Amino acid sequence: METKFVYSFEEGNQAMREILGGKGANLAQMKHMGLPVPAGFTISTQACAEYYGNNKKLPQPIISQIEEYMLKLEQSSQKKFADPKNPLLVSVRSGARVSMPGMMDTILNLGLNDEVLEGLAKKTKNRRFALDSYRRFIQMFSNVVMGMDCKDFEDIIENVKKSKGIELDVELDEADLENIIKQFKQYYRYHKKCEFPSSPKVQLIEAVEAVFRSRNTPRAIYYRQLNDIPSDWGTAVNVQMMVFGNMGKQSGTGVLFTRNASTGENNLFGEFLMNAQGEDVVAGIRTPSPIADLNKIMPKIYEKLKKICDILENHYKDMQDVEFTVEEGKLYILQTRNGKRTPFAALKIACDLVSEGKISKQEAVQMIDPNSLDALLHPRFDKQKLEKLSPIASGLAASPGAACGKVVFCSKDAIYGAQNGDKVVLVRSETSPEDIEGMNSAQGVLTMRGGMTSHAAVVARGMGKCCICGCAGIKVDEEKNFVEISGKKYTKGDYISLDGLTGNVYGEAISTVDAKISGYFKTIMDWADEIARLKVRANADTPRDARQAVCFGAKGVGLCRTEHMFFDSDRIRVMRQMIVSETEKQRKDALNKLLPIQQKDFEKIYEALEEKPVTIRLLDPPLHEFVPQKRPQQERLAQDMGVSLDEIKSRVKSLREFNPMMGHRGCRLAITYPEIAVMQTTAIINAAINVSKKHPDWNLVPEIMIPLVGDVKELQHVKKVIVKTADSLIKSTKIKLKYVVGTMIEVPRAALTANEIAKDAEFFSFGTNDLTQMTYGLSRDDSSKFLKDYYSKKIYEHDPFSKLDKDGVGKLVEIASELGRKTRPNICLGVCGEHGADPESIEFFDSIGLDYVSCSPYRVPVARLAAAQASIKNKNLRIL
Amino acid sequence: METKFVYSFEEGNQAMREILGGKGANLAQMKHMGLPVPAGFTISTQACAEYYGNNKKLPQPIISQIEEYMLKLEQSSQKKFADPKNPLLVSVRSGARVSMPGMMDTILNLGLNDEVLEGLAKKTKNRRFALDSYRRFIQMFSNVVMGMDCKDFEDIIENVKKSKGIELDVELDEADLENIIKQFKQYYRYHKKCEFPSSPKVQLIEAVEAVFRSRNTPRAIYYRQLNDIPSDWGTAVNVQMMVFGNMGKQSGTGVLFTRNASTGENNLFGEFLMNAQGEDVVAGIRTPSPIADLNKIMPKIYEKLKKICDILENHYKDMQDVEFTVEEGKLYILQTRNGKRTPFAALKIACDLVSEGKISKQEAVQMIDPNSLDALLHPRFDKQKLEKLSPIASGLAASPGAACGKVVFCSKDAIYGAQNGDKVVLVRSETSPEDIEGMNSAQGVLTMRGGMTSHAAVVARGMGKCCICGCAGIKVDEEKNFVEISGKKYTKGDYISLDGLTGNVYGEAISTVDAKISGYFKTIMDWADEIARLKVRANADTPRDARQAVCFGAKGVGLCRTEHMFFDSDRIRVMRQMIVSETEKQRKDALNKLLPIQQKDFEKIYEALEEKPVTIRLLDPPLHEFVPQKRPQQERLAQDMGVSLDEIKSRVKSLREFNPMMGHRGCRLAITYPEIAVMQTTAIINAAINVSKKHPDWNLVPEIMIPLVGDVKELQHVKKVIVKTADSLIKSTKIKLKYVVGTMIEVPRAALTANEIAKDAEFFSFGTNDLTQMTYGLSRDDSSKFLKDYYSKKIYEHDPFSKLDKDGVGKLVEIASELGRKTRPNICLGVCGEHGADPESIEFFDSIGLDYVSCSPYRVPVARLAAAQASIKNKNLRIL
Repeated sequence: METKFVYSFEEGNQAMREILGGKGANLAQMKHMGLPVPAGFTISTQACAEYYGNNKKLPQPIISQIEEYMLKLEQSSQKKFADPKNPLLVSVRSGARVSMPGMMDTILNLGLNDEVLEGLAKKTKNRRFALDSYRRFIQMFSNVVMGMDCKDFEDIIENVKKSKGIELDVELDEADLENIIKQFKQYYRYHKKCEFPSSPKVQLIEAVEAVFRSRNTPRAIYYRQLNDIPSDWGTAVNVQMMVFGNMGKQSGTGVLFTRNASTGENNLFGEFLMNAQGEDVVAGIRTPSPIADLNKIMPKIYEKLKKICDILENHYKDMQDVEFTVEEGKLYILQTRNGKRTPFAALKIACDLVSEGKISKQEAVQMIDPNSLDALLHPRFDKQKLEKLSPIASGLAASPGAACGKVVFCSKDAIYGAQNGDKVVLVRSETSPEDIEGMNSAQGVLTMRGGMTSHAAVVARGMGKCCICGCAGIKVDEEKNFVEISGKKYTKGDYISLDGLTGNVYGEAISTVDAKISGYFKTIMDWADEIARLKVRANADTPRDARQAVCFGAKGVGLCRTEHMFFDSDRIRVMRQMIVSETEKQRKDALNKLLPIQQKDFEKIYEALEEKPVTIRLLDPPLHEFVPQKRPQQERLAQDMGVSLDEIKSRVKSLREFNPMMGHRGCRLAITYPEIAVMQTTAIINAAINVSKKHPDWNLVPEIMIPLVGDVKELQHVKKVIVKTADSLIKSTKIKLKYVVGTMIEVPRAALTANEIAKDAEFFSFGTNDLTQMTYGLSRDDSSKFLKDYYSKKIYEHDPFSKLDKDGVGKLVEIASELGRKTRPNICLGVCGEHGADPESIEFFDSIGLDYVSCSPYRVPVARLAAAQASIKNKNLRIL
Repeated sequence: METKFVYSFEEGNQAMREILGGKGANLAQMKHMGLPVPAGFTISTQACAEYYGNNKKLPQPIISQIEEYMLKLEQSSQKKFADPKNPLLVSVRSGARVSMPGMMDTILNLGLNDEVLEGLAKKTKNRRFALDSYRRFIQMFSNVVMGMDCKDFEDIIENVKKSKGIELDVELDEADLENIIKQFKQYYRYHKKCEFPSSPKVQLIEAVEAVFRSRNTPRAIYYRQLNDIPSDWGTAVNVQMMVFGNMGKQSGTGVLFTRNASTGENNLFGEFLMNAQGEDVVAGIRTPSPIADLNKIMPKIYEKLKKICDILENHYKDMQDVEFTVEEGKLYILQTRNGKRTPFAALKIACDLVSEGKISKQEAVQMIDPNSLDALLHPRFDKQKLEKLSPIASGLAASPGAACGKVVFCSKDAIYGAQNGDKVVLVRSETSPEDIEGMNSAQGVLTMRGGMTSHAAVVARGMGKCCICGCAGIKVDEEKNFVEISGKKYTKGDYISLDGLTGNVYGEAISTVDAKISGYFKTIMDWADEIARLKVRANADTPRDARQAVCFGAKGVGLCRTEHMFFDSDRIRVMRQMIVSETEKQRKDALNKLLPIQQKDFEKIYEALEEKPVTIRLLDPPLHEFVPQKRPQQERLAQDMGVSLDEIKSRVKSLREFNPMMGHRGCRLAITYPEIAVMQTTAIINAAINVSKKHPDWNLVPEIMIPLVGDVKELQHVKKVIVKTADSLIKSTKIKLKYVVGTMIEVPRAALTANEIAKDAEFFSFGTNDLTQMTYGLSRDDSSKFLKDYYSKKIYEHDPFSKLDKDGVGKLVEIASELGRKTRPNICLGVCGEHGADPESIEFFDSIGLDYVSCSPYRVPVARLAAAQASIKNKNLRIL
């Protein structure tokens, strides 16, 4: 049997989105619901694939089916395509499964030529309308199908208006329009070296092919990549009988949302224009009227429209974005789809729909895009103020939030500024681990170089700090202490503002407001927690992070990176002494200085979490990250240690590694220097003892985590050191403190031998960042350079560090979970990589039954919502 | 039931090696065979484990069993332990499953004290003999059990001899021996603060515990590690009735090999001493006589011994190392074991045993340690000359062979020297990739720094070039062109010699002889090839390597690393131009210059291999490895390119990576710069076309290999480039050339998704070096620094880069093989990492059914033999 490529609206329905595209499926659905939809048909997404498979030419069988359905359309409309006596005009519109910017959208009035024009004029007794339709068609076809610049056509119209001294399109008379049409055609002939196609059939096929072609524009490709839309999803094409909003005073056209897209309030929200076609509303030449005014002009139409909106909302169970046209007093619905809305409006609408009884809590939770919450979680600029300003530069929106402060160019100045109560913005060519304290002291960070996974970006996201990276338009001169932006120099103390949501930089101070979870946001989050099986913890390295995490609803700390506690300027000096120590004695002396500092931090973190679990990871990064690379700091360290600069230099050199990511780090440090593990265990256990004494009713159970284990023997060795230290400390008090020892699973070998490792690990925490690096053999710090080629050549659809690779890395996580549970059925399994905040990855983690994900505090609400959605999708529901 | 820890010789047999140790099992076996073995029993290796499990004290049940068996021994010997009237003396000897140096070996005459001494004197009517036995016992017990220095006891004897003016021990009379015994006891008391133990029972238990203790001496631990003996294998202890070779003129003792251990000739080979105990033969104070002389002194004993040797050889089917004692004209056999022999002797003995009909070819092939062949494959020094010389320094024996030549300190001089027919030795602090050509030109390489896996070591092993690394005793001054060794300066042009087998450096010229496979060696290799299922290919990057590989019996080239072809000084300049090119045009120009050079190399390699398969890998390493880091070369490159030095510097800087091992390399290069893959494919295919034209009867099928694939889409993308290029070249000739495209599996993700990858890969080659790095998250270049802690703390037993980790890396290889075969049942599977030359790893690769291993040419015979042994063990026999 021949494949079916064309479907009339009567043949389709809402569920056929994959074949008909979103627009086509909804048109068919509305037809079924008896709504006033002009007749038409949809050419399927499979036809698109055939087009590409056939060397970008529409195969004959598809053309035949289109012709067949045009005949049917002629019958149902009782008009005839290309027939001047009773002409059928159609619109041709794209309709992908998800709509994409950059894709061809609409051609109206297709089917006109010089003869049909005259027929239409005669039949409608409105020659001006016919001419207006014809000039619109030529313009749209030339632009959208033939790729000519729209502006050139607008210029022709402008010149005609100028020469007549008129301002509005509606003031153009028939002669003017005839003149314009003539000039359009001349212009077309001049550029295309051929006549404008007069055959409606040719126009139709060309238009269909143009829609298919447009899904491969660079903008559409970029959009798919950005939004994780598979590149092989085709688009459909809708061909529909024209109805005319430009047929006179009883005609008009408009777009509306069934609720306020900005605030979520339950009122029709939109605009319309009388005597106009669709594009006039968007073009902004005539100012459209608010939708409420339609009630005054055509109250019956308004009532009917309102009723249809209700029907659509009830049916789709969501706020709708509706296009309509009124042709000589008759209302037509041209499109409906779920309406885009601000994150705030989304929360209110979801809650309202529940209280209106239209949807369940589960459906409400499913309606919100978890990633959209990001915008609600960081300090923001006042939107109204922002709209009046122009950015002076623009970079990668690496970490959301808003920052405003005085420019500083080094961490020292940032820290000094913060200590003196100044708000500062740290501007650097790029940041290094030495900048962490400076970044922490600053309101936000702006770098000239580095991508979405650069040091600045990753650290800032972890801190929930606003950050714009890779802002190539600025020139930072750190030595002379200035930055040049758009030709203007900004020196230390000048105000700038960063919008981490857009990547825009502003050359003045803009005030910000803080985020909190309350109202509708809180309601949705509470529902999410009720539904989710997977728990959400936070990665928190400082007491401040820990408090923020609890505030955002974290159920514990899944990862406390103890090394981040050492970057503070006082501490790093002692840390450096520890590292360059030549003897165990020297090292122990330095560790003894670090012990009370670290213990105090742990106490504060336990206090913040109350008795919720806290997983503390022993020192992980290569030691060279801590030692100074620059001469002044090296000199200082030499002084502190009472050794020569040369000795310091040689020690720093000896720490250098070819591939530090796979070098002397993680548990390998504790194996070489067990005294570090002893100090850290002492701090963890003593802190827990102190806090337990203060809160005798708490059941505090510290979780000690050993990083980078690849072999059970590594784990056993380090665990022995921990247990010996911890048990002797606990024995010396009266407190009955419990603690557990577990491991990161972040090296493929650990996953493959997890049955062995589980013998000694009481929990696994999947470090999916490192696991991704090792599984792909891909250095996160180096990959951005060549991954862009991977995207452009369609080898990767997205960054494996942002979205978990289920086939490879995910397989290892699954293998390890199974092996681990086989050995220790009640083993606690969590994830603490960046993927713990990615909704799609969370869905996967839920599907394989992990116990929790852990992410940066500012992503906790995102993860909570994603966890609930995952539970629903995977039917891992806590309550139903 | 109580565990049995003690076995009389009658209760054991040869097969009980694991429980009884090698020595005990053989003693039991000889007992069964009716050979004259003095009665005794063995305390099992499990007792050893119990001892360690019981806090290093022998548990009471074991002591009871020992006492029980001592009673039995008294019955069978009709003597009584600790009874002066009819004393039973015993020897106590260790007996691990494999013998280890550093382990306590033997205590003779145990059971003596002052009273028993007198009883023994009376019973044997030989007081001198009794005194001699007593002083030997005190000396051995003090040394071996109590850890006192043997030399101190020898000094006492020496002083007595000096004061009497005598030279030989046998000249000591009874009074002298009494005097010595007195002084021994005084000395013991002084040092141990207690009396020498007089209770034979105490002596026995102390001796047993000392044996168990001795298996944890640093030397024994090191030996286990070096020889891959699991650290939890215990040792057994043998307690045996003494027979006395020191009882007078009709007594004696000796050791012999049933064949010549040095040449393999079929004659008894060994030595004996009359009127002596075992240790005298080894001690070297009296010169023993050659075994043949025994025929003159005691012809009947000699005949009997010869007959026993025949029986033992026939039984054990191997040359034996036998200890015997004659007590008053009666022959006793004290030990037999397979004798150690030189690699050459091993080959001859194996062949001879086959022709004598004693063993099969399979058994012969199993007798040879594949690793021992190494010594036969590299040029060697004349052994006799070497023995007369003293080394001036000693380093790590990183790559075997012998090198003799004039010292040079830089690659340029090495190349220049070689071009002028000089033999040179390259001496450097350490080598870098820029030294490759220099290393290739030199006879051998000596470095001051770097371990067994340093650049110099790895590259040299790959080249089959003699190399000594990490020779800390030398001081290299590369700027002033001298090296100081043992206080003497050697400047450019001075001769030195390197012995890569021992790590010794000599300060003069020593002539070398070349290796070849002939005679017995060839016979064994031919048998191995008949038996082996697994094929052996070679890693060969140059025509010279390829010829060497064929010479050593390689069945193809499994890995031709095209990058090594670019290190030649002319070529690297063009290569550098290619790398620093800013435009595709510049890059293509440089590639066009490289094309004919590479094509010529491929032609020569195909010619060398005749029609055997050649797998050529596309460019793999990060480009920064090729660009110059030093100013003069950078200046030169700037000149060559006609750009500024700053531009070169900035380009070199931009190529720098944090973790180059996981950076822009492998197929990632071909994705960014497809023109490189086009050039290489062109060279590969054109070369094959040319060679096929020259040899129309050959069926040449080039195998093109894509490195570092982690996702099938990477493979598809690069394969498309290759196929397009290759097909168009083939189309333009009349030759019907076939070629195949496959991939390295060296990234865990590739292994995990091998079912997908096999859709497009016609073969897999496991790159187990990289796969080990990624699976462990362990950088090969950085790990030596901390792996030593892993060995000392018993976390790793051996280097995972030398011996395949079956549990982790091996699991991935197995997963990938299964998945690959599921998609493509006839897929060709090989290994091209360093593990391809390791016998134990080869056994694993054979067990999972891979098709071939590939290793450096100089390891090919090792791998061929190992493959045959693997086939036998895994019953993967080709012929039976």
